[in-house]
Amino acid sequence: MIERLCLIGMGLIGGSIAKTARKKQLCRSAVGFDQNYEATLKAKALGVIDVAADVMIDAVRGADLVIISTPVGAMESILRKLKASWSDTAVYTDVGSTKVSIVNAARAVFGDVPANFIPGHPIAGAELSGVEAAIEDLFENKRVILTPLPVSSTQHLARVRDFWGAVGASVSEMTADHHDAVLAATSHFPHLLAFALTDLLGRKDEKKEILKFAAGGFKDFSRIASSDPGMWRDICLANSGAILPLIEEFQRELERISQVIEAHEGEDLLQIFSSAGLARGRFLEQYSNI
Amino acid sequence: MIERLCLIGMGLIGGSIAKTARKKQLCRSAVGFDQNYEATLKAKALGVIDVAADVMIDAVRGADLVIISTPVGAMESILRKLKASWSDTAVYTDVGSTKVSIVNAARAVFGDVPANFIPGHPIAGAELSGVEAAIEDLFENKRVILTPLPVSSTQHLARVRDFWGAVGASVSEMTADHHDAVLAATSHFPHLLAFALTDLLGRKDEKKEILKFAAGGFKDFSRIASSDPGMWRDICLANSGAILPLIEEFQRELERISQVIEAHEGEDLLQIFSSAGLARGRFLEQYSNI
Repeated sequence: MIERLCLIGMGLIGGSIAKTARKKQLCRSAVGFDQNYEATLKAKALGVIDVAADVMIDAVRGADLVIISTPVGAMESILRKLKASWSDTAVYTDVGSTKVSIVNAARAVFGDVPANFIPGHPIAGAELSGVEAAIEDLFENKRVILTPLPVSSTQHLARVRDFWGAVGASVSEMTADHHDAVLAATSHFPHLLAFALTDLLGRKDEKKEILKFAAGGFKDFSRIASSDPGMWRDICLANSGAILPLIEEFQRELERISQVIEAHEGEDLLQIFSSAGLARGRFLEQYSNI
Repeated sequence: MIERLCLIGMGLIGGSIAKTARKKQLCRSAVGFDQNYEATLKAKALGVIDVAADVMIDAVRGADLVIISTPVGAMESILRKLKASWSDTAVYTDVGSTKVSIVNAARAVFGDVPANFIPGHPIAGAELSGVEAAIEDLFENKRVILTPLPVSSTQHLARVRDFWGAVGASVSEMTADHHDAVLAATSHFPHLLAFALTDLLGRKDEKKEILKFAAGGFKDFSRIASSDPGMWRDICLANSGAILPLIEEFQRELERISQVIEAHEGEDLLQIFSSAGLARGRFLEQYSNI
Protein backbone atom coordinates (compact mmCIF):
# COMPACT_ATOMS: atom_id res chain seq x y z
CA MET A 1 0.00 0.00 0.00
CA ILE A 2 1.30 3.42 -0.95
CA GLU A 3 0.88 5.98 1.83
CA ARG A 4 1.03 9.04 -0.35
CA LEU A 5 0.91 8.95 -4.14
CA CYS A 6 2.03 12.17 -5.80
CA LEU A 7 1.09 13.09 -9.36
CA ILE A 8 2.90 15.96 -11.04
CA GLY A 9 0.82 16.99 -14.01
CA MET A 10 -2.97 16.78 -13.86
CA GLY A 11 -3.83 15.82 -17.43
CA LEU A 12 -5.52 12.74 -18.86
CA ILE A 13 -2.71 10.40 -17.81
CA GLY A 14 -1.98 11.82 -14.35
CA GLY A 15 -5.69 12.06 -13.63
CA SER A 16 -6.37 8.52 -14.78
CA ILE A 17 -3.52 7.14 -12.65
CA ALA A 18 -4.84 8.92 -9.53
CA LYS A 19 -8.42 7.88 -10.22
CA THR A 20 -7.46 4.23 -10.71
CA ALA A 21 -5.12 4.10 -7.71
CA ARG A 22 -7.82 5.49 -5.42
CA LYS A 23 -10.55 3.29 -6.83
CA LYS A 24 -8.39 0.18 -6.43
CA GLN A 25 -7.25 1.37 -3.01
CA LEU A 26 -3.60 1.24 -3.97
CA CYS A 27 -2.81 4.38 -1.97
CA ARG A 28 -3.96 5.92 1.27
CA SER A 29 -4.01 9.37 -0.31
CA ALA A 30 -3.32 10.91 -3.72
CA VAL A 31 -1.96 14.41 -3.99
CA GLY A 32 -1.87 16.29 -7.27
CA PHE A 33 0.01 19.28 -8.62
CA ASP A 34 -0.16 21.03 -11.98
CA GLN A 35 1.56 24.20 -13.20
CA ASN A 36 -1.96 25.29 -14.00
CA TYR A 37 -3.58 25.46 -10.55
CA GLU A 38 -7.04 25.46 -12.15
CA ALA A 39 -6.40 21.93 -13.40
CA THR A 40 -5.33 20.83 -9.91
CA LEU A 41 -8.46 22.33 -8.38
CA LYS A 42 -10.61 20.70 -11.04
CA ALA A 43 -8.99 17.33 -10.25
CA LYS A 44 -9.84 17.83 -6.59
CA ALA A 45 -13.40 18.92 -7.38
CA LEU A 46 -13.89 15.87 -9.60
CA GLY A 47 -12.70 13.58 -6.83
CA VAL A 48 -9.68 12.47 -8.86
CA ILE A 49 -7.23 13.39 -6.06
CA ASP A 50 -7.51 13.78 -2.30
CA VAL A 51 -5.21 16.76 -1.95
CA ALA A 52 -4.63 19.69 -4.34
CA ALA A 53 -1.16 21.19 -3.93
CA ASP A 54 -0.46 24.69 -5.19
CA VAL A 55 3.33 24.37 -5.09
CA MET A 56 5.34 21.39 -6.20
CA ILE A 57 7.35 21.05 -3.03
CA ASP A 58 4.16 20.58 -1.00
CA ALA A 59 2.96 17.92 -3.39
CA VAL A 60 6.04 15.72 -3.10
CA ARG A 61 6.62 16.18 0.64
CA GLY A 62 6.14 12.80 2.33
CA ALA A 63 5.20 11.04 -0.90
CA ASP A 64 6.48 7.49 -1.30
CA LEU A 65 5.65 7.29 -5.05
CA VAL A 66 6.02 10.33 -7.30
CA ILE A 67 4.79 10.04 -10.89
CA ILE A 68 5.70 12.82 -13.28
CA SER A 69 2.93 12.94 -15.84
CA THR A 70 3.78 16.10 -17.77
CA PRO A 71 4.59 16.53 -21.48
CA VAL A 72 8.05 15.29 -22.47
CA GLY A 73 9.29 18.81 -23.15
CA ALA A 74 8.73 19.87 -19.52
CA MET A 75 10.71 17.03 -17.89
CA GLU A 76 14.05 18.71 -17.41
CA SER A 77 12.59 21.75 -15.72
CA ILE A 78 10.40 19.55 -13.48
CA LEU A 79 13.40 17.44 -12.41
CA ARG A 80 15.34 20.62 -11.71
CA LYS A 81 12.56 21.81 -9.41
CA LEU A 82 12.34 18.44 -7.67
CA LYS A 83 16.09 18.20 -7.08
CA ALA A 84 16.17 20.32 -3.91
CA SER A 85 13.65 18.13 -2.11
CA TRP A 86 14.67 14.82 -3.70
CA SER A 87 13.99 12.02 -1.22
CA ASP A 88 16.09 8.85 -1.15
CA THR A 89 13.29 6.75 0.28
CA ALA A 90 10.64 7.71 -2.27
CA VAL A 91 10.53 6.23 -5.75
CA TYR A 92 10.11 8.46 -8.80
CA THR A 93 8.89 7.56 -12.25
CA ASP A 94 7.44 9.29 -15.30
CA VAL A 95 5.05 8.56 -18.18
CA GLY A 96 6.85 10.26 -21.09
CA SER A 97 6.48 8.93 -24.65
CA THR A 98 10.23 9.14 -25.24
CA LYS A 99 12.81 7.73 -22.87
CA VAL A 100 16.33 8.63 -24.06
CA SER A 101 15.50 12.33 -23.76
CA ILE A 102 14.21 11.74 -20.21
CA VAL A 103 17.39 9.89 -19.22
CA ASN A 104 19.42 12.75 -20.70
CA ALA A 105 17.33 15.30 -18.81
CA ALA A 106 17.97 13.42 -15.53
CA ARG A 107 21.69 13.30 -16.28
CA ALA A 108 21.73 17.01 -17.05
CA VAL A 109 20.08 17.76 -13.70
CA PHE A 110 21.63 15.15 -11.39
CA GLY A 111 24.91 14.27 -13.10
CA ASP A 112 23.66 10.68 -13.32
CA VAL A 113 20.18 9.20 -13.21
CA PRO A 114 19.20 8.74 -9.54
CA ALA A 115 18.89 5.07 -8.50
CA ASN A 116 15.31 5.72 -7.40
CA PHE A 117 14.15 7.35 -10.64
CA ILE A 118 12.73 4.61 -12.91
CA PRO A 119 11.77 5.98 -16.35
CA GLY A 120 8.51 4.55 -17.64
CA HIS A 121 5.89 4.82 -20.37
CA PRO A 122 2.31 3.57 -20.21
CA ILE A 123 1.18 2.99 -23.81
CA ALA A 124 -2.28 4.38 -23.42
CA GLY A 125 -4.11 7.47 -24.47
CA ALA A 126 -7.49 8.67 -25.57
CA GLU A 127 -9.08 11.07 -28.00
CA LEU A 128 -9.71 13.60 -25.28
CA SER A 129 -7.22 15.31 -23.04
CA GLY A 130 -7.33 17.04 -19.67
CA VAL A 131 -8.13 15.77 -16.21
CA GLU A 132 -11.88 15.89 -16.92
CA ALA A 133 -11.30 13.10 -19.44
CA ALA A 134 -9.53 10.89 -16.86
CA ILE A 135 -10.90 7.37 -16.73
CA GLU A 136 -10.37 4.48 -14.35
CA ASP A 137 -9.77 1.70 -16.84
CA LEU A 138 -7.35 3.59 -19.11
CA PHE A 139 -4.46 1.24 -18.28
CA GLU A 140 -6.44 -1.98 -18.01
CA ASN A 141 -4.73 -4.54 -20.27
CA LYS A 142 -2.45 -1.86 -21.70
CA ARG A 143 1.30 -2.17 -21.87
CA VAL A 144 3.71 -0.22 -19.70
CA ILE A 145 7.38 -0.14 -20.63
CA LEU A 146 9.96 0.57 -17.93
CA THR A 147 13.49 1.49 -18.95
CA PRO A 148 15.67 1.03 -15.85
CA LEU A 149 19.40 1.73 -16.07
CA PRO A 150 22.28 -0.29 -14.62
CA VAL A 151 22.37 2.30 -11.85
CA SER A 152 18.67 1.77 -11.00
CA SER A 153 17.77 0.20 -7.66
CA THR A 154 16.07 -3.17 -8.16
CA GLN A 155 13.94 -2.53 -5.11
CA HIS A 156 12.58 0.72 -6.54
CA LEU A 157 12.13 -0.89 -9.93
CA ALA A 158 10.04 -3.62 -8.28
CA ARG A 159 7.84 -1.01 -6.59
CA VAL A 160 7.09 0.77 -9.88
CA ARG A 161 6.50 -2.54 -11.61
CA ASP A 162 4.13 -3.69 -8.88
CA PHE A 163 2.24 -0.42 -8.97
CA TRP A 164 1.52 -0.65 -12.71
CA GLY A 165 0.64 -4.31 -12.37
CA ALA A 166 -1.88 -3.45 -9.66
CA VAL A 167 -3.30 -0.72 -11.91
CA GLY A 168 -4.06 -3.45 -14.46
CA ALA A 169 -1.25 -3.03 -17.00
CA SER A 170 1.18 -5.56 -18.41
CA VAL A 171 4.73 -4.41 -17.64
CA SER A 172 7.81 -4.93 -19.85
CA GLU A 173 11.39 -3.79 -19.42
CA MET A 174 13.83 -2.71 -22.11
CA THR A 175 16.57 -0.16 -22.61
CA ALA A 176 15.64 3.46 -23.29
CA ASP A 177 17.21 3.18 -26.74
CA HIS A 178 15.16 0.14 -27.63
CA HIS A 179 12.00 1.75 -26.29
CA ASP A 180 12.57 4.81 -28.46
CA ALA A 181 13.20 2.73 -31.58
CA VAL A 182 10.07 0.64 -31.01
CA LEU A 183 7.84 3.61 -30.24
CA ALA A 184 9.24 5.62 -33.14
CA ALA A 185 8.16 2.81 -35.47
CA THR A 186 4.78 2.00 -33.97
CA SER A 187 3.60 5.39 -32.77
CA HIS A 188 5.75 8.46 -33.45
CA PHE A 189 6.37 7.85 -37.13
CA PRO A 190 2.75 6.81 -37.90
CA HIS A 191 1.63 10.07 -36.28
CA LEU A 192 4.16 12.00 -38.31
CA LEU A 193 2.90 10.32 -41.51
CA ALA A 194 -0.70 11.18 -40.67
CA PHE A 195 0.27 14.80 -39.98
CA ALA A 196 2.28 14.98 -43.21
CA LEU A 197 -0.48 13.52 -45.37
CA THR A 198 -3.23 15.61 -43.83
CA ASP A 199 -1.12 18.75 -44.17
CA LEU A 200 -0.41 17.95 -47.84
CA LEU A 201 -4.07 17.23 -48.60
CA GLY A 202 -5.14 20.33 -46.72
CA ARG A 203 -2.97 22.45 -49.00
CA LYS A 204 -4.33 20.71 -52.08
CA ASP A 205 -7.86 21.13 -50.76
CA GLU A 206 -7.52 24.90 -50.60
CA LYS A 207 -6.96 24.89 -54.36
CA LYS A 208 -9.18 22.06 -55.48
CA GLU A 209 -11.79 21.18 -52.86
CA ILE A 210 -10.72 17.58 -52.74
CA LEU A 211 -11.59 16.78 -49.14
CA LYS A 212 -15.31 16.77 -49.75
CA PHE A 213 -14.77 13.63 -51.79
CA ALA A 214 -12.68 11.92 -49.12
CA ALA A 215 -14.20 8.76 -47.71
CA GLY A 216 -14.14 6.79 -44.48
CA GLY A 217 -10.60 5.53 -45.03
CA PHE A 218 -9.24 9.05 -44.88
CA LYS A 219 -11.40 9.78 -41.84
CA ASP A 220 -9.67 7.01 -39.89
CA PHE A 221 -6.30 7.87 -41.31
CA SER A 222 -6.48 11.52 -40.40
CA ARG A 223 -7.94 10.96 -36.96
CA ILE A 224 -4.51 10.82 -35.38
CA ALA A 225 -3.59 14.03 -37.23
CA SER A 226 -5.98 15.82 -34.89
CA SER A 227 -3.84 14.87 -31.87
CA ASP A 228 -2.29 17.73 -29.89
CA PRO A 229 0.28 19.28 -32.28
CA GLY A 230 2.43 20.71 -29.46
CA MET A 231 2.78 17.37 -27.74
CA TRP A 232 3.74 15.68 -31.00
CA ARG A 233 6.23 18.38 -31.89
CA ASP A 234 7.92 17.73 -28.53
CA ILE A 235 7.94 13.98 -29.10
CA CYS A 236 9.36 14.27 -32.63
CA LEU A 237 12.12 16.57 -31.46
CA ALA A 238 12.86 14.48 -28.36
CA ASN A 239 13.04 11.26 -30.36
CA SER A 240 14.62 12.61 -33.54
CA GLY A 241 17.42 10.06 -33.24
CA ALA A 242 15.02 7.19 -33.90
CA ILE A 243 12.56 9.05 -36.15
CA LEU A 244 14.97 10.47 -38.72
CA PRO A 245 16.34 7.05 -39.82
CA LEU A 246 12.76 5.79 -40.10
CA ILE A 247 11.82 8.64 -42.42
CA GLU A 248 14.73 7.62 -44.62
CA GLU A 249 13.75 3.98 -44.53
CA PHE A 250 10.18 4.83 -45.40
CA GLN A 251 11.30 6.99 -48.28
CA ARG A 252 13.15 3.99 -49.67
CA GLU A 253 9.98 1.90 -49.27
CA LEU A 254 7.97 4.53 -51.19
CA GLU A 255 10.67 4.68 -53.84
CA ARG A 256 10.46 0.92 -54.28
CA ILE A 257 6.65 0.99 -54.55
CA SER A 258 6.87 3.87 -56.99
CA GLN A 259 9.25 1.87 -59.21
CA VAL A 260 7.04 -1.21 -59.03
CA ILE A 261 3.97 0.81 -60.07
CA GLU A 262 5.86 2.58 -62.83
CA ALA A 263 7.15 -0.74 -64.22
CA HIS A 264 3.61 -2.14 -63.87
CA GLU A 265 4.89 -5.10 -61.88
CA GLY A 266 1.55 -6.28 -60.53
CA GLU A 267 2.91 -9.36 -58.79
CA ASP A 268 5.46 -7.38 -56.77
CA LEU A 269 2.84 -4.83 -55.78
CA LEU A 270 0.44 -7.59 -54.70
CA GLN A 271 3.26 -9.10 -52.64
CA ILE A 272 3.86 -5.82 -50.75
CA PHE A 273 0.15 -5.22 -50.15
CA SER A 274 -0.39 -8.81 -49.03
CA SER A 275 2.45 -8.80 -46.52
CA ALA A 276 1.00 -5.60 -45.08
CA GLY A 277 -2.27 -7.44 -44.52
CA LEU A 278 -0.43 -10.31 -42.83
CA ALA A 279 1.48 -7.94 -40.54
CA ARG A 280 -1.79 -6.28 -39.59
CA GLY A 281 -3.21 -9.70 -38.73
CA ARG A 282 -0.19 -10.54 -36.55
CA PHE A 283 -0.53 -7.20 -34.82
CA LEU A 284 -4.22 -7.73 -34.03
CA GLU A 285 -3.44 -11.18 -32.65
CA GLN A 286 -0.82 -9.80 -30.27
CA TYR A 287 -3.07 -6.92 -29.41
CA SER A 288 -5.85 -9.22 -28.29
CA ASN A 289 -3.49 -11.64 -26.51
CA ILE A 290 -1.96 -9.08 -24.18
CA MET B 1 -39.23 3.27 -62.66
CA ILE B 2 -36.63 0.89 -64.07
CA GLU B 3 -38.18 -2.19 -65.63
CA ARG B 4 -35.13 -4.39 -65.40
CA LEU B 5 -32.01 -3.45 -63.47
CA CYS B 6 -28.95 -5.52 -64.35
CA LEU B 7 -25.96 -5.87 -62.05
CA ILE B 8 -22.77 -7.37 -63.44
CA GLY B 9 -20.65 -8.37 -60.45
CA MET B 10 -22.30 -9.66 -57.28
CA GLY B 11 -19.98 -8.27 -54.62
CA LEU B 12 -20.57 -5.81 -51.79
CA ILE B 13 -21.28 -2.89 -54.16
CA GLY B 14 -23.39 -4.71 -56.74
CA GLY B 15 -25.32 -6.49 -54.01
CA SER B 16 -25.94 -3.29 -52.08
CA ILE B 17 -27.19 -1.49 -55.20
CA ALA B 18 -29.63 -4.31 -55.98
CA LYS B 19 -30.81 -4.56 -52.38
CA THR B 20 -31.41 -0.81 -52.13
CA ALA B 21 -33.11 -0.52 -55.54
CA ARG B 22 -35.53 -3.31 -54.67
CA LYS B 23 -36.21 -2.03 -51.17
CA LYS B 24 -36.91 1.46 -52.50
CA GLN B 25 -38.92 0.02 -55.38
CA LEU B 26 -36.76 1.74 -57.98
CA CYS B 27 -36.96 -1.26 -60.32
CA ARG B 28 -39.54 -3.84 -61.25
CA SER B 29 -36.94 -6.58 -61.24
CA ALA B 30 -33.22 -6.88 -60.52
CA VAL B 31 -31.13 -9.45 -62.34
CA GLY B 32 -27.61 -10.34 -61.28
CA PHE B 33 -24.64 -12.00 -62.89
CA ASP B 34 -21.19 -12.84 -61.53
CA GLN B 35 -18.30 -14.75 -63.12
CA ASN B 36 -18.54 -16.86 -60.02
CA TYR B 37 -21.99 -18.43 -60.35
CA GLU B 38 -21.97 -19.38 -56.66
CA ALA B 39 -22.02 -15.66 -55.80
CA THR B 40 -24.98 -15.09 -58.12
CA LEU B 41 -26.89 -17.97 -56.56
CA LYS B 42 -26.08 -16.70 -53.09
CA ALA B 43 -27.41 -13.26 -54.06
CA LYS B 44 -30.63 -14.88 -55.22
CA ALA B 45 -30.90 -17.01 -52.08
CA LEU B 46 -30.36 -13.94 -49.90
CA GLY B 47 -33.13 -12.08 -51.72
CA VAL B 48 -30.69 -9.47 -53.04
CA ILE B 49 -31.77 -10.02 -56.67
CA ASP B 50 -34.90 -11.38 -58.33
CA VAL B 51 -33.19 -13.28 -61.12
CA ALA B 52 -29.85 -15.12 -61.15
CA ALA B 53 -28.30 -15.26 -64.62
CA ASP B 54 -25.64 -17.84 -65.40
CA VAL B 55 -24.41 -16.16 -68.57
CA MET B 56 -23.84 -12.46 -69.05
CA ILE B 57 -25.90 -12.13 -72.21
CA ASP B 58 -29.00 -13.40 -70.39
CA ALA B 59 -28.43 -10.91 -67.61
CA VAL B 60 -28.35 -7.84 -69.84
CA ARG B 61 -31.14 -8.91 -72.25
CA GLY B 62 -34.02 -6.48 -71.86
CA ALA B 63 -32.30 -4.48 -69.13
CA ASP B 64 -32.83 -0.71 -69.20
CA LEU B 65 -30.07 0.03 -66.66
CA VAL B 66 -26.87 -2.03 -66.60
CA ILE B 67 -24.42 -1.38 -63.75
CA ILE B 68 -21.01 -2.97 -64.01
CA SER B 69 -19.85 -3.52 -60.44
CA THR B 70 -16.70 -5.57 -60.94
CA PRO B 71 -13.11 -4.78 -59.95
CA VAL B 72 -11.43 -2.14 -62.11
CA GLY B 73 -9.05 -4.68 -63.66
CA ALA B 74 -11.92 -6.69 -65.17
CA MET B 75 -13.63 -3.77 -66.97
CA GLU B 76 -12.12 -4.13 -70.42
CA SER B 77 -12.97 -7.82 -70.69
CA ILE B 78 -16.51 -7.19 -69.42
CA LEU B 79 -17.07 -4.43 -71.98
CA ARG B 80 -15.73 -6.72 -74.68
CA LYS B 81 -18.28 -9.38 -73.73
CA LEU B 82 -21.10 -6.82 -73.60
CA LYS B 83 -20.27 -5.35 -77.00
CA ALA B 84 -22.09 -7.97 -79.09
CA SER B 85 -25.40 -7.37 -77.32
CA TRP B 86 -24.92 -3.62 -76.65
CA SER B 87 -28.34 -1.95 -76.62
CA ASP B 88 -28.81 1.66 -77.71
CA THR B 89 -31.86 2.14 -75.57
CA ALA B 90 -30.36 0.88 -72.32
CA VAL B 91 -28.03 3.00 -70.20
CA TYR B 92 -24.77 1.55 -68.89
CA THR B 93 -22.66 2.71 -66.00
CA ASP B 94 -19.97 1.33 -63.68
CA VAL B 95 -18.74 1.76 -60.12
CA GLY B 96 -14.96 1.60 -60.63
CA SER B 97 -12.61 3.49 -58.29
CA THR B 98 -10.61 4.85 -61.23
CA LYS B 99 -12.15 6.53 -64.24
CA VAL B 100 -9.47 7.31 -66.84
CA SER B 101 -8.64 3.61 -67.13
CA ILE B 102 -12.35 2.83 -67.61
CA VAL B 103 -12.66 5.45 -70.34
CA ASN B 104 -9.57 3.99 -72.00
CA ALA B 105 -10.99 0.48 -71.72
CA ALA B 106 -14.22 1.63 -73.41
CA ARG B 107 -12.22 3.32 -76.17
CA ALA B 108 -10.15 0.18 -76.69
CA VAL B 109 -13.31 -1.90 -77.09
CA PHE B 110 -15.68 0.48 -78.92
CA GLY B 111 -13.31 2.90 -80.67
CA ASP B 112 -14.96 5.69 -78.68
CA VAL B 113 -16.94 5.70 -75.46
CA PRO B 114 -20.58 4.87 -76.30
CA ALA B 115 -22.98 7.82 -75.71
CA ASN B 116 -25.01 5.62 -73.34
CA PHE B 117 -22.11 4.49 -71.15
CA ILE B 118 -21.77 6.93 -68.26
CA PRO B 119 -18.70 6.17 -66.10
CA GLY B 120 -19.40 6.53 -62.38
CA HIS B 121 -17.99 5.95 -58.92
CA PRO B 122 -19.95 5.69 -55.68
CA ILE B 123 -17.56 6.63 -52.86
CA ALA B 124 -18.67 3.97 -50.44
CA GLY B 125 -17.33 0.76 -49.10
CA ALA B 126 -17.21 -1.33 -45.97
CA GLU B 127 -14.85 -3.51 -44.00
CA LEU B 128 -16.39 -6.65 -45.37
CA SER B 129 -16.71 -7.78 -48.95
CA GLY B 130 -18.93 -10.16 -50.87
CA VAL B 131 -22.66 -10.14 -51.56
CA GLU B 132 -23.42 -11.48 -48.08
CA ALA B 133 -22.13 -8.16 -46.71
CA ALA B 134 -24.48 -6.12 -48.95
CA ILE B 135 -26.46 -3.50 -47.03
CA GLU B 136 -29.35 -1.27 -47.97
CA ASP B 137 -28.08 2.01 -46.65
CA LEU B 138 -24.53 1.77 -48.05
CA PHE B 139 -25.04 4.77 -50.34
CA GLU B 140 -27.24 6.85 -48.06
CA ASN B 141 -25.65 10.33 -47.84
CA LYS B 142 -22.57 9.12 -49.70
CA ARG B 143 -21.11 10.86 -52.73
CA VAL B 144 -21.29 9.50 -56.24
CA ILE B 145 -19.08 11.02 -58.93
CA LEU B 146 -20.10 10.70 -62.57
CA THR B 147 -17.55 11.46 -65.27
CA PRO B 148 -19.50 11.94 -68.49
CA LEU B 149 -17.65 12.78 -71.70
CA PRO B 150 -18.53 15.33 -74.40
CA VAL B 151 -19.88 12.39 -76.39
CA SER B 152 -22.18 11.27 -73.56
CA SER B 153 -25.95 11.56 -74.02
CA THR B 154 -27.44 14.07 -71.58
CA GLN B 155 -30.59 11.98 -71.39
CA HIS B 156 -28.68 8.90 -70.29
CA LEU B 157 -26.58 10.96 -67.91
CA ALA B 158 -29.81 12.22 -66.32
CA ARG B 159 -31.06 8.67 -65.87
CA VAL B 160 -27.92 7.56 -64.05
CA ARG B 161 -27.91 10.72 -61.95
CA ASP B 162 -31.58 10.21 -61.03
CA PHE B 163 -30.97 6.59 -60.13
CA TRP B 164 -28.18 7.41 -57.67
CA GLY B 165 -30.19 10.28 -56.25
CA ALA B 166 -33.11 7.92 -55.62
CA VAL B 167 -30.70 5.48 -53.96
CA GLY B 168 -29.89 8.23 -51.46
CA ALA B 169 -26.52 9.51 -52.72
CA SER B 170 -25.35 13.03 -53.51
CA VAL B 171 -24.22 13.15 -57.15
CA SER B 172 -21.38 15.29 -58.57
CA GLU B 173 -19.95 15.51 -62.07
CA MET B 174 -16.36 16.08 -63.09
CA THR B 175 -13.91 14.94 -65.75
CA ALA B 176 -12.33 11.51 -65.45
CA ASP B 177 -8.93 13.16 -65.05
CA HIS B 178 -10.09 15.32 -62.18
CA HIS B 179 -11.82 12.38 -60.53
CA ASP B 180 -8.62 10.35 -60.67
CA ALA B 181 -6.52 13.17 -59.22
CA VAL B 182 -8.98 13.75 -56.37
CA LEU B 183 -9.37 10.07 -55.53
CA ALA B 184 -5.62 9.46 -55.78
CA ALA B 185 -5.12 12.11 -53.09
CA THR B 186 -7.98 11.23 -50.77
CA SER B 187 -8.18 7.48 -51.14
CA HIS B 188 -5.63 5.67 -53.31
CA PHE B 189 -2.51 7.30 -51.92
CA PRO B 190 -3.64 7.05 -48.26
CA HIS B 191 -4.21 3.34 -48.82
CA LEU B 192 -0.80 3.01 -50.44
CA LEU B 193 0.78 4.78 -47.44
CA ALA B 194 -0.98 2.47 -45.00
CA PHE B 195 0.15 -0.59 -46.99
CA ALA B 196 3.73 0.74 -47.16
CA LEU B 197 3.94 1.52 -43.45
CA THR B 198 2.37 -1.75 -42.35
CA ASP B 199 4.65 -3.71 -44.68
CA LEU B 200 7.70 -1.88 -43.33
CA LEU B 201 6.69 -2.44 -39.70
CA GLY B 202 5.86 -6.05 -40.43
CA ARG B 203 9.41 -6.64 -41.64
CA LYS B 204 10.84 -4.87 -38.59
CA ASP B 205 8.52 -6.87 -36.36
CA GLU B 206 9.93 -10.17 -37.58
CA LYS B 207 13.29 -9.11 -36.25
CA LYS B 208 12.35 -7.13 -33.16
CA GLU B 209 8.80 -7.92 -32.04
CA ILE B 210 7.77 -4.30 -32.17
CA LEU B 211 4.10 -4.71 -33.00
CA LYS B 212 3.20 -5.96 -29.56
CA PHE B 213 3.94 -2.46 -28.31
CA ALA B 214 1.85 -0.76 -30.97
CA ALA B 215 -1.08 1.20 -29.64
CA GLY B 216 -4.54 2.22 -30.80
CA GLY B 217 -3.23 4.82 -33.25
CA PHE B 218 -1.51 2.14 -35.26
CA LYS B 219 -4.62 -0.02 -35.08
CA ASP B 220 -6.65 2.66 -36.87
CA PHE B 221 -3.85 3.47 -39.23
CA SER B 222 -3.30 -0.10 -40.33
CA ARG B 223 -6.98 -0.93 -40.63
CA ILE B 224 -7.04 0.16 -44.25
CA ALA B 225 -3.94 -1.96 -44.88
CA SER B 226 -6.14 -5.00 -44.40
CA SER B 227 -8.23 -4.05 -47.44
CA ASP B 228 -8.25 -6.48 -50.37
CA PRO B 229 -4.67 -6.37 -51.74
CA GLY B 230 -5.69 -7.51 -55.23
CA MET B 231 -8.26 -4.76 -55.60
CA TRP B 232 -5.78 -2.14 -54.45
CA ARG B 233 -3.05 -3.41 -56.73
CA ASP B 234 -5.48 -2.99 -59.65
CA ILE B 235 -6.40 0.52 -58.52
CA CYS B 236 -2.77 1.61 -58.08
CA LEU B 237 -1.84 0.30 -61.52
CA ALA B 238 -4.97 1.74 -63.17
CA ASN B 239 -4.41 5.18 -61.61
CA SER B 240 -0.62 5.28 -61.72
CA GLY B 241 -0.76 8.53 -63.66
CA ALA B 242 -2.18 10.38 -60.66
CA ILE B 243 -0.54 8.31 -57.91
CA LEU B 244 3.11 8.53 -59.02
CA PRO B 245 3.27 12.36 -58.88
CA LEU B 246 1.66 12.23 -55.42
CA ILE B 247 4.35 9.85 -54.16
CA GLU B 248 6.93 12.36 -55.35
CA GLU B 249 5.12 15.24 -53.72
CA PHE B 250 4.84 13.33 -50.47
CA GLN B 251 8.54 12.45 -50.58
CA ARG B 252 9.25 16.19 -50.71
CA GLU B 253 6.91 16.76 -47.73
CA LEU B 254 8.76 14.07 -45.74
CA GLU B 255 12.08 15.57 -46.77
CA ARG B 256 10.94 18.97 -45.51
CA ILE B 257 9.76 17.55 -42.17
CA SER B 258 12.98 15.60 -41.84
CA GLN B 259 15.01 18.79 -42.30
CA VAL B 260 12.86 20.69 -39.82
CA ILE B 261 13.32 17.97 -37.18
CA GLU B 262 17.04 17.72 -37.87
CA ALA B 263 17.46 21.48 -37.51
CA HIS B 264 15.28 21.35 -34.37
CA GLU B 265 12.96 24.03 -35.74
CA GLY B 266 10.12 23.53 -33.30
CA GLU B 267 8.03 26.42 -34.60
CA ASP B 268 8.03 25.12 -38.18
CA LEU B 269 7.13 21.63 -37.03
CA LEU B 270 4.28 22.96 -34.90
CA GLN B 271 3.06 24.88 -37.93
CA ILE B 272 2.93 21.74 -40.09
CA PHE B 273 1.22 19.67 -37.39
CA SER B 274 -1.28 22.44 -36.65
CA SER B 275 -2.31 22.91 -40.27
CA ALA B 276 -2.89 19.17 -40.47
CA GLY B 277 -5.31 19.48 -37.56
CA LEU B 278 -7.10 22.35 -39.27
CA ALA B 279 -7.42 20.41 -42.53
CA ARG B 280 -8.83 17.49 -40.60
CA GLY B 281 -11.41 19.82 -39.04
CA ARG B 282 -12.40 21.20 -42.46
CA PHE B 283 -12.74 17.67 -43.76
CA LEU B 284 -15.01 16.62 -40.91
CA GLU B 285 -17.18 19.67 -41.45
CA GLN B 286 -17.68 18.88 -45.14
CA TYR B 287 -18.18 15.24 -44.31
CA SER B 288 -21.05 15.99 -41.99
CA ASN B 289 -22.60 18.61 -44.29
CA ILE B 290 -22.99 16.37 -47.30
